Amino acid sequence: MSEPVFDVAHLGHVELLTNKPEASLDFFTRIFGLTESGREEDSVYLRAYDDYEFHTLKLTASKTTGMRHVGYRATSRQALARRIAAIEQMGLGMGWTDGDLGHGPAYQFRDPDQHVFELYYDTRRYEAPPQERPALKNQAQKFPARGIATRRIDHLNLLANDVAAIRDFMPKAMGSRITEQIVLDDRSVGGCWFTVNNKSYDIAYTRDHAGANGRFHHVTYAVDQREHILQAADIFLENGIPIETGPHKHAIQQTFFLYVFEPAGNRVEVANAGARLILAPDWQTITWTEAERSKGQAWGLKTIESFHTHGTPPVAHA
Amino acid sequence: MSEPVFDVAHLGHVELLTNKPEASLDFFTRIFGLTESGREEDSVYLRAYDDYEFHTLKLTASKTTGMRHVGYRATSRQALARRIAAIEQMGLGMGWTDGDLGHGPAYQFRDPDQHVFELYYDTRRYEAPPQERPALKNQAQKFPARGIATRRIDHLNLLANDVAAIRDFMPKAMGSRITEQIVLDDRSVGGCWFTVNNKSYDIAYTRDHAGANGRFHHVTYAVDQREHILQAADIFLENGIPIETGPHKHAIQQTFFLYVFEPAGNRVEVANAGARLILAPDWQTITWTEAERSKGQAWGLKTIESFHTHGTPPVAHA
Amino acid sequence: MSEPVFDVAHLGHVELLTNKPEASLDFFTRIFGLTESGREEDSVYLRAYDDYEFHTLKLTASKTTGMRHVGYRATSRQALARRIAAIEQMGLGMGWTDGDLGHGPAYQFRDPDQHVFELYYDTRRYEAPPQERPALKNQAQKFPARGIATRRIDHLNLLANDVAAIRDFMPKAMGSRITEQIVLDDRSVGGCWFTVNNKSYDIAYTRDHAGANGRFHHVTYAVDQREHILQAADIFLENGIPIETGPHKHAIQQTFFLYVFEPAGNRVEVANAGARLILAPDWQTITWTEAERSKGQAWGLKTIESFHTHGTPPVAHA
Amino acid sequence: MSEPVFDVAHLGHVELLTNKPEASLDFFTRIFGLTESGREEDSVYLRAYDDYEFHTLKLTASKTTGMRHVGYRATSRQALARRIAAIEQMGLGMGWTDGDLGHGPAYQFRDPDQHVFELYYDTRRYEAPPQERPALKNQAQKFPARGIATRRIDHLNLLANDVAAIRDFMPKAMGSRITEQIVLDDRSVGGCWFTVNNKSYDIAYTRDHAGANGRFHHVTYAVDQREHILQAADIFLENGIPIETGPHKHAIQQTFFLYVFEPAGNRVEVANAGARLILAPDWQTITWTEAERSKGQAWGLKTIESFHTHGTPPVAHA
Repeated sequence: MSEPVFDVAHLGHVELLTNKPEASLDFFTRIFGLTESGREEDSVYLRAYDDYEFHTLKLTASKTTGMRHVGYRATSRQALARRIAAIEQMGLGMGWTDGDLGHGPAYQFRDPDQHVFELYYDTRRYEAPPQERPALKNQAQKFPARGIATRRIDHLNLLANDVAAIRDFMPKAMGSRITEQIVLDDRSVGGCWFTVNNKSYDIAYTRDHAGANGRFHHVTYAVDQREHILQAADIFLENGIPIETGPHKHAIQQTFFLYVFEPAGNRVEVANAGARLILAPDWQTITWTEAERSKGQAWGLKTIESFHTHGTPPVAHA
Repeated sequence: MSEPVFDVAHLGHVELLTNKPEASLDFFTRIFGLTESGREEDSVYLRAYDDYEFHTLKLTASKTTGMRHVGYRATSRQALARRIAAIEQMGLGMGWTDGDLGHGPAYQFRDPDQHVFELYYDTRRYEAPPQERPALKNQAQKFPARGIATRRIDHLNLLANDVAAIRDFMPKAMGSRITEQIVLDDRSVGGCWFTVNNKSYDIAYTRDHAGANGRFHHVTYAVDQREHILQAADIFLENGIPIETGPHKHAIQQTFFLYVFEPAGNRVEVANAGARLILAPDWQTITWTEAERSKGQAWGLKTIESFHTHGTPPVAHA
Repeated sequence: MSEPVFDVAHLGHVELLTNKPEASLDFFTRIFGLTESGREEDSVYLRAYDDYEFHTLKLTASKTTGMRHVGYRATSRQALARRIAAIEQMGLGMGWTDGDLGHGPAYQFRDPDQHVFELYYDTRRYEAPPQERPALKNQAQKFPARGIATRRIDHLNLLANDVAAIRDFMPKAMGSRITEQIVLDDRSVGGCWFTVNNKSYDIAYTRDHAGANGRFHHVTYAVDQREHILQAADIFLENGIPIETGPHKHAIQQTFFLYVFEPAGNRVEVANAGARLILAPDWQTITWTEAERSKGQAWGLKTIESFHTHGTPPVAHA
Repeated sequence: MSEPVFDVAHLGHVELLTNKPEASLDFFTRIFGLTESGREEDSVYLRAYDDYEFHTLKLTASKTTGMRHVGYRATSRQALARRIAAIEQMGLGMGWTDGDLGHGPAYQFRDPDQHVFELYYDTRRYEAPPQERPALKNQAQKFPARGIATRRIDHLNLLANDVAAIRDFMPKAMGSRITEQIVLDDRSVGGCWFTVNNKSYDIAYTRDHAGANGRFHHVTYAVDQREHILQAADIFLENGIPIETGPHKHAIQQTFFLYVFEPAGNRVEVANAGARLILAPDWQTITWTEAERSKGQAWGLKTIESFHTHGTPPVAHA
């Protein structure tokens, strides 16, 4: 009997590209409620008030949109070495970087769909400046009563041409467990949800119907209560931020969700999972069929068409 | 650099003693919203709707109150063997039992305050009978729209004479991490919060001011939203269940809480942690001083006196 | 300057017809959380826990579905007399009935679309039997921790062929104020919301696209918090009750809503208005244009087609 | 049978005195989430986003604290004239003022405890400047995602030496109905709750144990959901605003409450009433005995001592 792997601790950060850097930054700070913790070159480092690391979102000005890389933190240096060995064995390693403002050296690799990942252990804990010191010492930063004031990064959703290849790759590379998946009538994998810890997922992949590679679907921050997502909907409405779909409850993973587009077109989600956690070390993957998915979301909302078609960067049409 | 231990997956169940078995069962099923999954001898097996195992509460008729044992599930058979080896090395092992209706063989041991623990890997997953089948296949049981309808077991709080001894024991025996603690002015440990996973704690110990051993403070079930705890307060009020304190927010761990006494006198909590999780593999223990604790709970509520004095079973007075 | 009229106090009750009386009663008591307060002939009298009168829903077995009558309570006997005089002047009076289990003599009349109304002053206050006595004396009945446990009747929505005629009628007959309306591009009135008190509406009329008369769209009960509506969605889902649309927030009146069909096919809503009240005695009617309505609900949800077509009783097709 | 009086529509505004005008203004705008709509002399006019009038709080710099006056809006000019006639008959009238930035001419009078009231009909509706225009046209102002972002003024609590005298006065002067009261064992009236509309109260009086006159206990703004009050507690905590008591649920009126002191020492409340309304035109006053009050609040919280002793302005000690 093989043992579950606990080498990767959690999703650390996402680097998002924007071709409207000022508008995107205004969205993430004033409306989404993140706080700037640093700047370097074309990037602004952003964080939610309960993220313990320096940043969880690196917003980088670019000619296009989408995700440049995603970082996960290992549980120890030894665990990091084990993961690198496994990844190099698969021939997908890219090598070390020096890290950036938010963490130390990181080992980069590609998933089979060409998204860039990095794994690191040495990190930089957020040290709150005086005006951001919290009243309770078990919280990283003062609660910002501004906009949506999300609590922490939650998960990421990427697009892939061949989700089955990802389903094979992630457990081997990261030690991820597959909590839920969609298997279509033709046996192809429509979507797959992975976790390295007790969250029900920290990354999901769904099929890229455009046939492109390395594209981004959305990044999600968690708020404490479902009511905060209802209030977020009003805040988006009042500020002219386009709501794609929600608030509603996903059947898959039961997450209460709300999706919007930030000004550059990247999709962003606010979510709440209630008290749901994956505690079983031998959780049995839930498989949803095509017929089950056609019922829509938990309370009957039909999945909006753009959810299947919109990814960033946009795909050039010949 | 030593690595964090991931041998224990999660708190599995608590066996609670009651000298008013009918009234206690009525409380846990009709008001607290648990569901009976089995009976054997003097025990009724109970579960919340999203607990994946057969039961999380074993309610046993007895001449007294308090806790008979607490069970944790290991992450694998190998992990279980490692924990047993560590416990036996400390000389606190008791040996194997055959398990019960809810799980297979379990290894029992005592903590330094004489509470009985058991570790097991082989478990019995809950199989919902037709009337309890959920609409969504990623949930163990139909949501019971009855009473408080708690989602899952969350944590346990025990009393101990020497909390410092427990603070030393739990990491060695279980691989638990210490997330928060109270260190009094005389350097003694007033309370200590432990976790084996991403929950901010699954067990806490606080000092038994009565000088007794092996006593129980409370067991906690989680609900999805803080609003459900406000509604729970009304349900307790309407049903004559004594509310000890709350709803309010703990400064320690930031849990939103409500404490009541079930009919036999055991303390029970309903709680919600929002989206707070301990994701850092190297979380630095938060230490609260005596002065900080004297401020009361997060929003200023003074800690009620009975919280320091009431445990089960009651202590006989000479 | 004419003064606002305060002759009618509030919506009192609705008599709903069902051709599946047992299934409808099970729905309203076990799932919707109403309590039976009496029976007489083919009718069961039902009430929410904070309704102060004997009943707010009279559920009557019938060969068909829809609404038999709606009752409003006058603010005094003198006020009742003034309303009757106004209604008789319009030639729409039907005369007195002896009342029923829930109230004393009532004066009946028809609206221009043939729905039957009654106005009464003498009522029967609910007297809670021992098992329904509340813990707080300012509440009519113990909170039933069962199903959705709605708090009180809120409003009614009827269909009419000529909503403009209703818009003219209601202020004259009842002293109602028009808080919001839809005026289409062809100047016809698509919908109209009326109130006799500080609620933003107690009755709404929308156009019957089937060209029938006297039909019913839905009746609504209020819960205390929006979170209770999210939980209600799960309760409906788990019990196989078809959800038509929601939860979502209406742009019109800003009500947070959820619509389902009870087993006989009558549409029922659970709603929460937050702290929104109409306090201005000279509230200026809000008029929504066809273009504004085409935007859908507040957060972008498109209005579901059945919302425009489904009324009860069903219309016979030639 | 006398008819209920509907001459007064609603509480309009409160003029609060502060000897720390800058700190108080910062509190009410940045933390409490009110918006400034005007300034004149020593006063700043403030409003919540769903208040339909120009202002509901007039914050005036002064040498002391407390309330200078409270304004109620009449339902019509004729209704205003009727109230003035009634008040003058009691010999408590003070005469007309020209109004201020927020409304037209107002008739002033004193209650038996020397608090100054004014009644007016001509008002100034809030006209949102471009940056405050709401997305939904049935709302006065854009939702400000800033601090607590309260929705509307709710009620006022004043201290009086002789609450029985107030209980006699308010129905005669204003047509108010007495919804709840405290009658102590010595038959004296400990507190009395009044309403002119469907809100369960718009003003309350409790006994001034200091034996002073004309003092202020608190002013309350409503938020939409109880969860917003829990979040408000965190916002107060993070900003160093002293929380007096709460969040908790009052037994009287069932209001979910949270009390703080603004920087100058005036008590301010944030509250939510759920869906509770007083709809009965002949509501029977609920009377609480001394024994019932000694049980504390709904869920058992003991009433904090300062709630009985702290009023503004402070009483000079000889």
